[in-house]
Amino acid sequence: MPKIVDPAQRREAIADALFAIVLKQGFAKVSLRAIAEEAGLAIGSIRHYFTTAEGIVRFALETLVARVSARLETRLASLLPQLDAGSLSGGAAKELTVDLLAELLPLDEVRRQESVVWLAFEETARTDPALADVFETSVRGSRKLMARTLESMSHRGALRVDLDLDLEVDALAALIDGLTLRSTLHPEVLTPERAREVLSAHLEQLRK
Amino acid sequence: MPKIVDPAQRREAIADALFAIVLKQGFAKVSLRAIAEEAGLAIGSIRHYFTTAEGIVRFALETLVARVSARLETRLASLLPQLDAGSLSGGAAKELTVDLLAELLPLDEVRRQESVVWLAFEETARTDPALADVFETSVRGSRKLMARTLESMSHRGALRVDLDLDLEVDALAALIDGLTLRSTLHPEVLTPERAREVLSAHLEQLRK
Repeated sequence: MPKIVDPAQRREAIADALFAIVLKQGFAKVSLRAIAEEAGLAIGSIRHYFTTAEGIVRFALETLVARVSARLETRLASLLPQLDAGSLSGGAAKELTVDLLAELLPLDEVRRQESVVWLAFEETARTDPALADVFETSVRGSRKLMARTLESMSHRGALRVDLDLDLEVDALAALIDGLTLRSTLHPEVLTPERAREVLSAHLEQLRK
Repeated sequence: MPKIVDPAQRREAIADALFAIVLKQGFAKVSLRAIAEEAGLAIGSIRHYFTTAEGIVRFALETLVARVSARLETRLASLLPQLDAGSLSGGAAKELTVDLLAELLPLDEVRRQESVVWLAFEETARTDPALADVFETSVRGSRKLMARTLESMSHRGALRVDLDLDLEVDALAALIDGLTLRSTLHPEVLTPERAREVLSAHLEQLRK
């Protein structure tokens, strides 16, 4: 009796194999053969789902973006109503906001691996225009998350009124990118916990 | 009559050939053969200076760090005495400080190319422990520059007194990393000029 294979699961497993190769050896080692070996599949079986290594790379990037976005959306859906209801103390509201944005920092092994793979994709996409649209969508999406977070603070009267909001969105997005880059690649200079402290202090300075 | 070759110049030209390959095609395409072709040299001639591609990669990274550091040191040597003399207006002193730190942003083609190559090195070094020490030295060096800048502000009484200086150094270093990352790889989302504005606004918030 043939095994029943869920095509969506199989495609995700192939993306996970690509992530594992990037983590261990870097993007330069990604090939159909290496992915097949890592996933424990025959190359022919992978070709059933993807015709080229480029197709896998694109699907893997979309998978990474979808996973991080889904986690952020879930957090946002649970936190924003609490924040907007205005029933929390200022300190508790701030902690929730830090928790939400800290989803982007490499604070556990899952997020660390996502950050590492993300940075590798950034470097690969630079010379591969075929991936540029996924990146632009994602970078604009993270900018939107920063905007929603600051708007929620503003809505409950927790934000200083002398701020240029649009500039603060760019600053917050860049700060989180930089904290992620440093604490992922140079944890001996900036630990992930320290990155969270810096983020928290930054939000504190934006508060009334 | 044999041509007289300056060995230091020849080594720098080989590093420049590596930078050009990384810029155009990414790190994965760097090889002795590709470097020889880009530099217009015979492989044998390159082997006279470097025995392996890894040796060239390390020398190139050290060259990049040395070039950026030399530029920053020159700026610092000319600006710090002016700042510390206390004869400048607050606004003029702030502009000089922004100019100094903006040396790290991709505001012209030289700095843009350096940023691109730097990010590619970061990604390569992640799976190449042989380069880790150059990176750690450099990341600590940039942290030291941030500390010197904030200390100079503090020394002339231009810094808010309620700040945790050590935390502000981490914040400033991460902000500049993030601004550089975004405006180098995603200038359509954050232009380099906008990155400079964000940096300037951040320093403004630290001022008394």
